Amino acid sequence: MANKIVTFGEIMMRLSPPNYFRFVQTDSFDVTYGGAEANVAASLANYGENVYFVTKVPSNPIGQSAINHLRRYGVKTDYIVRGGERLGIYFHEFGASQRPSLVIYDRKYSSFAESKPTEYKWEKILDEAKWFHFTGITPAVSENAAQACLDAVKTAKNKGIIVSCDLNYRKKLWSPQKANEVMAELMKYVDIVIANEEAAEKVFNIKVKDSDVTQENLQLDDYKNLAKQISERFDLKGVAITLRESFSAFDNGWAGLYYDGSKFYSSKKYQIHIVDRVGGGDSFAGGLIYALINNYPHQEVIEFATAASCLKHSIIGDFNHVTVEEVKTLTKGDSTGRIQR
Amino acid sequence: MANKIVTFGEIMMRLSPPNYFRFVQTDSFDVTYGGAEANVAASLANYGENVYFVTKVPSNPIGQSAINHLRRYGVKTDYIVRGGERLGIYFHEFGASQRPSLVIYDRKYSSFAESKPTEYKWEKILDEAKWFHFTGITPAVSENAAQACLDAVKTAKNKGIIVSCDLNYRKKLWSPQKANEVMAELMKYVDIVIANEEAAEKVFNIKVKDSDVTQENLQLDDYKNLAKQISERFDLKGVAITLRESFSAFDNGWAGLYYDGSKFYSSKKYQIHIVDRVGGGDSFAGGLIYALINNYPHQEVIEFATAASCLKHSIIGDFNHVTVEEVKTLTKGDSTGRIQR
Amino acid sequence: MANKIVTFGEIMMRLSPPNYFRFVQTDSFDVTYGGAEANVAASLANYGENVYFVTKVPSNPIGQSAINHLRRYGVKTDYIVRGGERLGIYFHEFGASQRPSLVIYDRKYSSFAESKPTEYKWEKILDEAKWFHFTGITPAVSENAAQACLDAVKTAKNKGIIVSCDLNYRKKLWSPQKANEVMAELMKYVDIVIANEEAAEKVFNIKVKDSDVTQENLQLDDYKNLAKQISERFDLKGVAITLRESFSAFDNGWAGLYYDGSKFYSSKKYQIHIVDRVGGGDSFAGGLIYALINNYPHQEVIEFATAASCLKHSIIGDFNHVTVEEVKTLTKGDSTGRIQR
Amino acid sequence: MANKIVTFGEIMMRLSPPNYFRFVQTDSFDVTYGGAEANVAASLANYGENVYFVTKVPSNPIGQSAINHLRRYGVKTDYIVRGGERLGIYFHEFGASQRPSLVIYDRKYSSFAESKPTEYKWEKILDEAKWFHFTGITPAVSENAAQACLDAVKTAKNKGIIVSCDLNYRKKLWSPQKANEVMAELMKYVDIVIANEEAAEKVFNIKVKDSDVTQENLQLDDYKNLAKQISERFDLKGVAITLRESFSAFDNGWAGLYYDGSKFYSSKKYQIHIVDRVGGGDSFAGGLIYALINNYPHQEVIEFATAASCLKHSIIGDFNHVTVEEVKTLTKGDSTGRIQR
Amino acid sequence: MANKIVTFGEIMMRLSPPNYFRFVQTDSFDVTYGGAEANVAASLANYGENVYFVTKVPSNPIGQSAINHLRRYGVKTDYIVRGGERLGIYFHEFGASQRPSLVIYDRKYSSFAESKPTEYKWEKILDEAKWFHFTGITPAVSENAAQACLDAVKTAKNKGIIVSCDLNYRKKLWSPQKANEVMAELMKYVDIVIANEEAAEKVFNIKVKDSDVTQENLQLDDYKNLAKQISERFDLKGVAITLRESFSAFDNGWAGLYYDGSKFYSSKKYQIHIVDRVGGGDSFAGGLIYALINNYPHQEVIEFATAASCLKHSIIGDFNHVTVEEVKTLTKGDSTGRIQR
Amino acid sequence: MANKIVTFGEIMMRLSPPNYFRFVQTDSFDVTYGGAEANVAASLANYGENVYFVTKVPSNPIGQSAINHLRRYGVKTDYIVRGGERLGIYFHEFGASQRPSLVIYDRKYSSFAESKPTEYKWEKILDEAKWFHFTGITPAVSENAAQACLDAVKTAKNKGIIVSCDLNYRKKLWSPQKANEVMAELMKYVDIVIANEEAAEKVFNIKVKDSDVTQENLQLDDYKNLAKQISERFDLKGVAITLRESFSAFDNGWAGLYYDGSKFYSSKKYQIHIVDRVGGGDSFAGGLIYALINNYPHQEVIEFATAASCLKHSIIGDFNHVTVEEVKTLTKGDSTGRIQR
Repeated sequence: MANKIVTFGEIMMRLSPPNYFRFVQTDSFDVTYGGAEANVAASLANYGENVYFVTKVPSNPIGQSAINHLRRYGVKTDYIVRGGERLGIYFHEFGASQRPSLVIYDRKYSSFAESKPTEYKWEKILDEAKWFHFTGITPAVSENAAQACLDAVKTAKNKGIIVSCDLNYRKKLWSPQKANEVMAELMKYVDIVIANEEAAEKVFNIKVKDSDVTQENLQLDDYKNLAKQISERFDLKGVAITLRESFSAFDNGWAGLYYDGSKFYSSKKYQIHIVDRVGGGDSFAGGLIYALINNYPHQEVIEFATAASCLKHSIIGDFNHVTVEEVKTLTKGDSTGRIQR
Repeated sequence: MANKIVTFGEIMMRLSPPNYFRFVQTDSFDVTYGGAEANVAASLANYGENVYFVTKVPSNPIGQSAINHLRRYGVKTDYIVRGGERLGIYFHEFGASQRPSLVIYDRKYSSFAESKPTEYKWEKILDEAKWFHFTGITPAVSENAAQACLDAVKTAKNKGIIVSCDLNYRKKLWSPQKANEVMAELMKYVDIVIANEEAAEKVFNIKVKDSDVTQENLQLDDYKNLAKQISERFDLKGVAITLRESFSAFDNGWAGLYYDGSKFYSSKKYQIHIVDRVGGGDSFAGGLIYALINNYPHQEVIEFATAASCLKHSIIGDFNHVTVEEVKTLTKGDSTGRIQR
Repeated sequence: MANKIVTFGEIMMRLSPPNYFRFVQTDSFDVTYGGAEANVAASLANYGENVYFVTKVPSNPIGQSAINHLRRYGVKTDYIVRGGERLGIYFHEFGASQRPSLVIYDRKYSSFAESKPTEYKWEKILDEAKWFHFTGITPAVSENAAQACLDAVKTAKNKGIIVSCDLNYRKKLWSPQKANEVMAELMKYVDIVIANEEAAEKVFNIKVKDSDVTQENLQLDDYKNLAKQISERFDLKGVAITLRESFSAFDNGWAGLYYDGSKFYSSKKYQIHIVDRVGGGDSFAGGLIYALINNYPHQEVIEFATAASCLKHSIIGDFNHVTVEEVKTLTKGDSTGRIQR
Repeated sequence: MANKIVTFGEIMMRLSPPNYFRFVQTDSFDVTYGGAEANVAASLANYGENVYFVTKVPSNPIGQSAINHLRRYGVKTDYIVRGGERLGIYFHEFGASQRPSLVIYDRKYSSFAESKPTEYKWEKILDEAKWFHFTGITPAVSENAAQACLDAVKTAKNKGIIVSCDLNYRKKLWSPQKANEVMAELMKYVDIVIANEEAAEKVFNIKVKDSDVTQENLQLDDYKNLAKQISERFDLKGVAITLRESFSAFDNGWAGLYYDGSKFYSSKKYQIHIVDRVGGGDSFAGGLIYALINNYPHQEVIEFATAASCLKHSIIGDFNHVTVEEVKTLTKGDSTGRIQR
Repeated sequence: MANKIVTFGEIMMRLSPPNYFRFVQTDSFDVTYGGAEANVAASLANYGENVYFVTKVPSNPIGQSAINHLRRYGVKTDYIVRGGERLGIYFHEFGASQRPSLVIYDRKYSSFAESKPTEYKWEKILDEAKWFHFTGITPAVSENAAQACLDAVKTAKNKGIIVSCDLNYRKKLWSPQKANEVMAELMKYVDIVIANEEAAEKVFNIKVKDSDVTQENLQLDDYKNLAKQISERFDLKGVAITLRESFSAFDNGWAGLYYDGSKFYSSKKYQIHIVDRVGGGDSFAGGLIYALINNYPHQEVIEFATAASCLKHSIIGDFNHVTVEEVKTLTKGDSTGRIQR
Repeated sequence: MANKIVTFGEIMMRLSPPNYFRFVQTDSFDVTYGGAEANVAASLANYGENVYFVTKVPSNPIGQSAINHLRRYGVKTDYIVRGGERLGIYFHEFGASQRPSLVIYDRKYSSFAESKPTEYKWEKILDEAKWFHFTGITPAVSENAAQACLDAVKTAKNKGIIVSCDLNYRKKLWSPQKANEVMAELMKYVDIVIANEEAAEKVFNIKVKDSDVTQENLQLDDYKNLAKQISERFDLKGVAITLRESFSAFDNGWAGLYYDGSKFYSSKKYQIHIVDRVGGGDSFAGGLIYALINNYPHQEVIEFATAASCLKHSIIGDFNHVTVEEVKTLTKGDSTGRIQR
């Protein structure tokens, strides 16, 4: 039985040079569409949930293409508002080896950034919904978006809907001070937080290293400490942390940690050879929400979220195109990549 | 001996779906760069002139790519200002048969639109220049751009540089009233005007049909009348008119007319099967300027400009990649398309 | 206010070599999905109708891709049955000049062809629907499909839903005798028939030329006669005829005729330079249904249907990606293909 | 029953920019392989003949790729000599509308051009062969190639093999004087000549217009006169003439004429919308040889050759990928390009 | 001196999304052709052997394309039967990192599966042949194919031709019980078997682990034991085993083992970063047959086979495009990948 | 303040199959342009220097495309001579895993190889230049090129310009004996030498191992010894050595060493996952020259050169498209490949 889930944020056109070309080399762009909350919606649609993505896009073929992309992958677009000037764009250059991926944002003045809070009818949108998700990017986009976000979480709270938030700090959009101020207010209505160490520090000044610890195993303790601090400061039902080790643009270590207020659950760790890293965190959030809303045991929750996002790193584009079965195959231990005939 | 020529305006990234795809169908964009004045510069560089294109682009790899595109085709970029927020973009969908080409502009807030007039050092830029060219799009982009344009033509006039202007009315950028007001002021410093009937009517309310004429040959007289009116109103050295017959997105008739204040010169008429129509008018301007600055007889001037722009319709992208020799082969009558081995 | 419309038939994967390559030359295929009734659904979705396509596809990523293609373009897929062995495929080679397009079907044993009539829950599917559409291909696919089709039209009749049928004879699927037998039974429940001369002759042995007529204008009379015969034999509310003149794989004449039982309405005739001819007839049906269900005057009905399908010939793939506004621009006479900025 | 046929000449790598790009625009080349005699061989292989192409290519993966291309399309490569420095290359830019196609040869110093006459074992190669074909390009490539060609035709004559030659004058390779001298010697062993007016004039100084004729029908008489002159000068069994009308790079008229020493046979004339014009003449030769060796009546011979080459113009690459059945469909009058399902 | 070798089985069209795309993401497929026995033939053709692949394909351009693919790479297609309904297809999705490659078969009802045993003229086909090869897939395809296979090996035995078989179990095609029954009968005529642990267990219930062994070196002993068991049960001349370690879709360990009835020969082990894993086993078989038929010492046999298949993993498509020299360079120890200039 | 730098050598068209295809598989080539000295120029242009590349290319669109490629990336082309027969070509196949990259040269008879020494006006070219760079390939191309090179370095010496040379031995172009003879003469005018162990041994018979050293750390001493020997033999200001460890076509270790006549400076060592290895050494030279001409401390010089060339391995094509800032980010230790937003 599919659950109604709503995510809210901006969707952008993503333009990437093919073939590991640098921007200055390319004569074509591969096009896809993405944004943190749209990516989470796509994960949930893939898993069979009844998920709506809420945003505003321009009334032209470019905006329509973003909607079509969402529909193609099963995300409901009924509540998307149309109008405004432009669709946000981000240019994305694939990194390789020691050369990092590059993202150039061209998202200012977008239909979403300039949308009015009153354009989103939250009472109707959230009717019968079970979960609402947003990330720290949405309120960072503009004052209006922050207000719309606040309206949404308040309405959700009133309706008894679970609210999750991925901190997702973006330094190009706002300062840590501003982020802290706006997010602290939103946190009042949030049940589940997803974060990594950078976002926790930038948004809430909670640092992973506050005791003199050393090396490996202790490192996990640091992350546990981080999760616990976040959980306690905002009185949360759950905190999920992603642990990324960046060896190069091609090679990352990846693991997850979940704290449910009483116990810690840490996932298997994956050594990933990366195809496309963008949306990795969002696919973790998508897996986490799916597992939680379907009442997986918490150890399975963190295994599912981490395995789902491990697989995302092998998929081109912002969306995670994997099924529940594929994720479960990995959580059960088959990471050998043998041909499935 | 190459002549120093300067053109001024905006260069945008152009994103076109491949294969006659509609926007909603495409998963990739072919990228090129163009803008009315940049296109004219590219023509002139191809013909061996020493041509500088002046604009402002952002200091990032996207802006750099626009500069690289200009450099690749021999346009000098020394005076291009760097900074600002974004490079203007236009999405371009190839039309076919009865389906028209579609252009969606996303050019607001561009580095050029928001550039300050003082950022362009016209004294230095125009030093030793022989010709300055702009189009009606440049002053339409923003107040600042209009002022920069006025500064440029005044400086040019002071230096005895020939100034040409292609009227090029864009209804998305300004109203006829505003266009008239701004362009009339600029016209004081202009020597040569290029126009088609639509631009002449929209910008200066000069209509091609003001006598009760009929059919074919008389039609040419209408255009002559149009050229003469423009010439006299602004006391010009020359007026060039492009005559386009639009049968479909694939088939156009194309001819040119030049009036030097005393005589009319009309070109051969071409039936064109179109590959890419964008930049067709600009390639006419490029051919015209080349022929005039090299003192071609006026009949050859209009033949050269028309043949050059006829060939542009067979070339993908905004720029006209033809040599003087190729244009001359066509003006001499070889339009058979036989393989050149 | 969108109308619920249901179409029923097979959707296939279409594999086409790029670049006018012949099959033996290609090392890649462009993929799209289509089928006569799916194509009609796509047209109607584009025009804003609430359209459901009913079929059966396999439960694997290939079947899912067909569903995703429909969703991408706004067709509702809620009633699509999943299971069976395979998705039908058709290989399609673009023709050029005197070389005809080539279609190689590989559709036998498909999930749809082998689906059971009982798998389609027509009572539920047609609940609140206003229109049901199928073509002569659906009952030709298999006995089961013919029975499912009969179930559907009977249910539709019971519910007072308008039923339309495009004759669409396919010689690879059945003989004229078999077609006549099955289609005659189905015709009892049909209100609107769409046909061309070949289908009318093959399926019902009604010929366009049965009086000694000659040349041009009289030719139209022949088609009128054809429409009238079909209308009277099956006591129909309306008959629409498409008139195609095939000059080459690149050049066709195209017009439409509508007979409402009392009067004839014939459309403007278009000379088309073809990009992709597949789905041309389906886009005519889509335009016709849209115009009829929205109560356009009958002259406008035939103009809309013909203009819509004229535009389809300029679009790659089986689906017609045009808006109501774009069709109307053409019916109002703008076929010049001028750039829309 | 397939006939053993041998053709002799150079095969080159052909590099063409995609998408009607000019050379200066492209960042990739589409690769194919071709050469006048290889193209004829490919036609004959397609028609089911047992055809061997004789040449020399370098012993590296580039030479191997040329061989693989021949094998892919059924041409026998057993007698191809391997060694030497390089495979000849020709760069080919597709023309469009008034812009002609461009060919830049980079064929000097090729393995073929520098091959020794003794490397070709004609006794063995021509054993049991029924037909030998070469063109005026082969002896023009180098002195050695001319000598090898002479060896071949002499051996063929001794064995009673029919020898055909397509004049095919290439001004970049030799002068009319040199061509005349070498070709006149070779003509002693030739039975069938294929020519167009340009080649006839350049190689043998036989002009199409040597009487004061005018207009249309008379024009055909001129070509008959041309055929007759060639036939008589070299005492030939047959002369075939191709008649091309070049309206643009996209549009050509195309017809053929055959003279068997007593009667003239002229083909239907085709109006072609060109996809790829290269190899058009070779596909005519291929069709002609096929029809002659299979003893078609002479009217059918010229119809087959002309229809085959008409279809070639719709196919990308130098080779003509059509079957006997496809050619016959066209000779029987179906040039409507209707989809073949 | 090339040896006549015959392989027998099915060739399918393989359709793969480009760029690590998942099936649901792709709008195009890269096309190649392959099948276990065709792949072996391609290896042997590359090494200069005179190899014939026997199968049945439909008489249409799709079947022709499969034949052309074989011809392109030097495989003889003279004995291929034409007719039937369709060419088998398999959809192939490249895996990446922890995401496995995916193969979706659409091979039922293929021309090969439905071919009659009498269509293959083994007396003629195997005339003067020195080696016959098939895999466990061929008899699994259909009863008819199993019978044809039996006819072939009996004929081969009569003629004293060496017969090799790669077990190659496919669970989608038959059960272990059925496989055991059919293969046991065929084994009577087989001289050389190639297997991996999975196939050995599934087809003959011979397991790699039947003694209580541990770790690394001992592991090799297990494989030796496996080889010995197979060899003894069927009284074989030789048994070759491939040892694959699957770390991820990108990283595999790869080694080979050969047992000639008296001694074991184990190859160097390669750590491979995979480009395309499909056909890896077939390239091992191809290398093995080449080395055995050319009487390499047995240690060199296993080194050649293993190195050849190591290289295959770096090549896109089912076929192994390497030369004898390239394989030998690797067996001699140069695996550094330094540029060969 | 940009420094005038001049490099001299050949630029070739590079044709590479896409997608790790082998030459025999490809139906298209990706095109780029490169050559050792052109690559160095491109690096320097990227870093903002005023760099001129001197060569000779043919006066046709192929030669023009090479020039355009240089211009696109900011290299000055004012002194390039035009004329001659052809542009040199090199075919390049990407290696993968154990399969090495393959380069097939087709550079004989190029415009550059056949250019006359007198065509290069060194007095003018080197006027106000601060640095002249060439590699051992330039004099190896032809006697003429060697003479031109000698003219250049003599002129440079006269003008007090620093001269650098990358030894770059190419066995296809000359023998060690010839190389030694010609290079020894040129060395008289050289200040800075760049080499790897292979070039040092082939050109000057200076071996890295001439003392009985063993393993790891000592290995660096060997390279120091090598640098010192070169430095002393030719009385140089500086010697830079690149240390490459080739594990496979995908994985290399990479480090650099600089000796300034008194001290050794060795860089950090990078483990690289290779995208394109061609031009790796040239990008080292480019980084070295930039750092030296801008008076970086010598430890920073070697770190900059090594980091720059490390990044090159992640970039497709011969040119290194990185900025000074990007190189410095890596020298400062960020090799994590984290997304730069």
